[in-house]
Amino acid sequence: MKFNVSGKLTYDIKEHSTIILNIHAIRSAAQTVLRETFSIEPYHKSEELIPVQGENRYIRFEVPEPVVINIDYSALIDTSFKKITGSLLNDVPVMQLPPQVLPYLSPSRYCQSDKLYRFANSRFGKIDNAFERVLALTDWIFENVEYLSGSTNSETSAYDTVTEQAGVCRDFAHLGIALCRALSIPARYFTGYSYLLKPSDFHACFEAFLGNEWVLFDATKLAPLNGLVKIATGRDAADTAIATIFGNVVCTAISVSCELAEEKFKPFNYDRKKPRGLTYL
Amino acid sequence: MKFNVSGKLTYDIKEHSTIILNIHAIRSAAQTVLRETFSIEPYHKSEELIPVQGENRYIRFEVPEPVVINIDYSALIDTSFKKITGSLLNDVPVMQLPPQVLPYLSPSRYCQSDKLYRFANSRFGKIDNAFERVLALTDWIFENVEYLSGSTNSETSAYDTVTEQAGVCRDFAHLGIALCRALSIPARYFTGYSYLLKPSDFHACFEAFLGNEWVLFDATKLAPLNGLVKIATGRDAADTAIATIFGNVVCTAISVSCELAEEKFKPFNYDRKKPRGLTYL
Amino acid sequence: MKFNVSGKLTYDIKEHSTIILNIHAIRSAAQTVLRETFSIEPYHKSEELIPVQGENRYIRFEVPEPVVINIDYSALIDTSFKKITGSLLNDVPVMQLPPQVLPYLSPSRYCQSDKLYRFANSRFGKIDNAFERVLALTDWIFENVEYLSGSTNSETSAYDTVTEQAGVCRDFAHLGIALCRALSIPARYFTGYSYLLKPSDFHACFEAFLGNEWVLFDATKLAPLNGLVKIATGRDAADTAIATIFGNVVCTAISVSCELAEEKFKPFNYDRKKPRGLTYL
Amino acid sequence: MKFNVSGKLTYDIKEHSTIILNIHAIRSAAQTVLRETFSIEPYHKSEELIPVQGENRYIRFEVPEPVVINIDYSALIDTSFKKITGSLLNDVPVMQLPPQVLPYLSPSRYCQSDKLYRFANSRFGKIDNAFERVLALTDWIFENVEYLSGSTNSETSAYDTVTEQAGVCRDFAHLGIALCRALSIPARYFTGYSYLLKPSDFHACFEAFLGNEWVLFDATKLAPLNGLVKIATGRDAADTAIATIFGNVVCTAISVSCELAEEKFKPFNYDRKKPRGLTYL
Repeated sequence: MKFNVSGKLTYDIKEHSTIILNIHAIRSAAQTVLRETFSIEPYHKSEELIPVQGENRYIRFEVPEPVVINIDYSALIDTSFKKITGSLLNDVPVMQLPPQVLPYLSPSRYCQSDKLYRFANSRFGKIDNAFERVLALTDWIFENVEYLSGSTNSETSAYDTVTEQAGVCRDFAHLGIALCRALSIPARYFTGYSYLLKPSDFHACFEAFLGNEWVLFDATKLAPLNGLVKIATGRDAADTAIATIFGNVVCTAISVSCELAEEKFKPFNYDRKKPRGLTYL
Repeated sequence: MKFNVSGKLTYDIKEHSTIILNIHAIRSAAQTVLRETFSIEPYHKSEELIPVQGENRYIRFEVPEPVVINIDYSALIDTSFKKITGSLLNDVPVMQLPPQVLPYLSPSRYCQSDKLYRFANSRFGKIDNAFERVLALTDWIFENVEYLSGSTNSETSAYDTVTEQAGVCRDFAHLGIALCRALSIPARYFTGYSYLLKPSDFHACFEAFLGNEWVLFDATKLAPLNGLVKIATGRDAADTAIATIFGNVVCTAISVSCELAEEKFKPFNYDRKKPRGLTYL
Repeated sequence: MKFNVSGKLTYDIKEHSTIILNIHAIRSAAQTVLRETFSIEPYHKSEELIPVQGENRYIRFEVPEPVVINIDYSALIDTSFKKITGSLLNDVPVMQLPPQVLPYLSPSRYCQSDKLYRFANSRFGKIDNAFERVLALTDWIFENVEYLSGSTNSETSAYDTVTEQAGVCRDFAHLGIALCRALSIPARYFTGYSYLLKPSDFHACFEAFLGNEWVLFDATKLAPLNGLVKIATGRDAADTAIATIFGNVVCTAISVSCELAEEKFKPFNYDRKKPRGLTYL
Repeated sequence: MKFNVSGKLTYDIKEHSTIILNIHAIRSAAQTVLRETFSIEPYHKSEELIPVQGENRYIRFEVPEPVVINIDYSALIDTSFKKITGSLLNDVPVMQLPPQVLPYLSPSRYCQSDKLYRFANSRFGKIDNAFERVLALTDWIFENVEYLSGSTNSETSAYDTVTEQAGVCRDFAHLGIALCRALSIPARYFTGYSYLLKPSDFHACFEAFLGNEWVLFDATKLAPLNGLVKIATGRDAADTAIATIFGNVVCTAISVSCELAEEKFKPFNYDRKKPRGLTYL
């Protein structure tokens, strides 16, 4: 599937500041970047940081003096997914987990899985198939947490969301991740562009490691899973913030888009009657 | 400095379980492992996992049936430290931080630096030199948090410790790390063997990234800094647990030792009158 | 310095084939990719492979049936160099070499430094400063090897070039690398776009590790060093081929360009009277 | 299988020298190091270098003054192999090869596969199954190259061995690797300890990537494949030398052993009548 994505951000820089952006689509076997433009107006030098392990792309730059800057990223992306029958998406025993997956079993800043152990196991622990188990917890979040813009902030964690029962995509993802980890299923945060998301914005959801694949889940059910374009994955939003800012900086405008760049698109979402998981080619 | 270290653990395995141990001393330019023995009695196969990035050594094994097992790790280690004048240990601007250091600026499970931003900056933000700043916050922890065995548990975080003002080495380290990160100083959790620590146990402290070096700090002030033998570093205790257990397992005995394997040892700790930081060769 | 670079390749695919291209400019702290387009006409899916260690970008795709394809890569790049006084560019003792640099001391397919040990040491071994030593061997190659298109092929190695005394940029680079390694100076192959190179083509030269920096050298002296845009580095051309082809494929056209995208450019080349090395910011 | 291995080396150091040893057994999922001792007498500090990608363990140290040193490495190792039916060990299409395997398709210093393309394809290209193809070339080497101590040196390459038809284990391995790569089968050099090898010494053989596994091959047929303990893998001997020496140093004694540390051992070697490949658990 080809998509034209773009992210435009305006920052009012009040003093010497450093910004680390994470808005570039990753480049992987399942996601090809065919065309890409990135600009900071007025021009400032930037550098792309790629961690040793992983595919996330961080853009770091500094702005020495007060100024209003406009960030513009746009790209043409080709993504590839595959569907796997849910019954094949079983738990991978900890003994067989690839070493690089193990960190996604540990609690993290916004996903305190250690505090949700009893909650998760009493509600979902008895579901035999792992894919069905994650579907069940995703449905539970969808049914019990209200999607409410502005209800949470950058300090809100999964532990809070269980009680407060309101949040945005980020909170839905954190709770999904925390519940998976509490069930000994590795899970990680996904941030990206999302086709048919209304209103258009950066989106967040999560991936669970089932049957040796990272399988996509979105407890908000706001957009089709196969319309996602990946920017980053990480333990939680602390690893994958759209922008990490050091200095006195105000974001004054943000505009995100994700448009289809080919003719046909058949939306795919999970169906409890025909359980199939979506993963990468 | 040469040290003989050992860690002995007894586990009562109640059912099929998987254990990931993190008790092996790391192998690095500044720490050489000259002799090493690891055994699980009765014998079980184990594998050593080394992450792509980093030096930590995880031992993973599974025990299929109920049994009592004895873990015995012992090693002869040669460590190398150097002392650097505090005035050289300045902040590294975010723009110059090596990419692999950036994750240690983000909040993590037990070190919610985002929630301690005002606290850290109002108390320590005005101290000009970064090494002095970290010394000051370390002293503040030492003076305000009571070292009290059993006062905390595996869910206790830096945010809790600020209020509860009691904890063990792990909690002291988490609070030190959280305060550093709140001041935009990268900091990471250190776990290891510690010479002259009383009572003998695994120890935890932290490292702050100053002047392009990872500098050691220990807010407990329980043992000399140059008597430390490193097992692991990570974002916090979630990355570096001595044992991560999947299954019904009870730890029934633990015994840790760290003895000098050469003749002389001159303990080194920080001195506000003569500020010098300890780092690796 | 900003440059618009482009590489266009036409392949006549005779049968099911797989191609790995290495024509994308790397993304690093010293080289930012501001705009980039890559296309295969007619459209074929491709994937970008980034090795765990390193910055090279490989594009892999397969073509299932006979067809003529047109590859078009174009990008706007911003590069940053710095000049370092030659006297500071000393040998780094093997004991202090970063581990990731060590492989560049070993002989490789086209750079049999082991066979050139006596040759290199008798001619250049007595020059005290390492930068001057590499300048001297670069000058020796420039003076003794004739630049002659078509004189060599993909099997020609540095060992051949010493005797045959003719070659193209690739052979000049291989010989420079082999001589450096024979002198215990780590050296690696550089391939890239080159401003002011006549006729325009992909270019090859080499980097030597001096004073803890990778310093650029070009024994062909065909173009200014600060007009280079890096595609890849590797042990030799075996690691960094513009195209690696599996199947019956004929390259029928190739067109490369590198144009200045800002107003001024001051060409920089080495000057024995004022020895300064060029390296990355 | 448990083995006690040891390598003892005596070096007469004539001047300030640096040595990089590669004699430690790797630590992996299929090979556990249970006990290990390494000493340099008289004592010199050493550091263990582990490359970002890979498992090889290099020990680097310097000796500042003339002295005779004794190196002693000994370890208790537990290895795990599995046997796979030959018909499952097919070629992996280049398009499906994991990126980290691709370098093992390229020619290297001692394995000039590019020069052996016609030779390899005319002799072995028509054998359908990849495992049988590698068996055939291994048999060809065994039948056509004479095992002759002292017949070759550190400059001898696969290209030489085809013509000279004599060599030691290193040369047999290089030729096997070069032929595999000429057939588009990734192959890498293996160096290790070998049970039942006579006379006892470090051994070399090779691994070919078939059916998504690294499968062991030994064209010398001198010892059972399941008696191997891995020290390192690499492109060829240039990556995995037992000792890389910088300075005037003479090796005056070498002693290697590999003894069974459990009761039973059933030697396994390849059998054309019942084709099964040996790989790691």
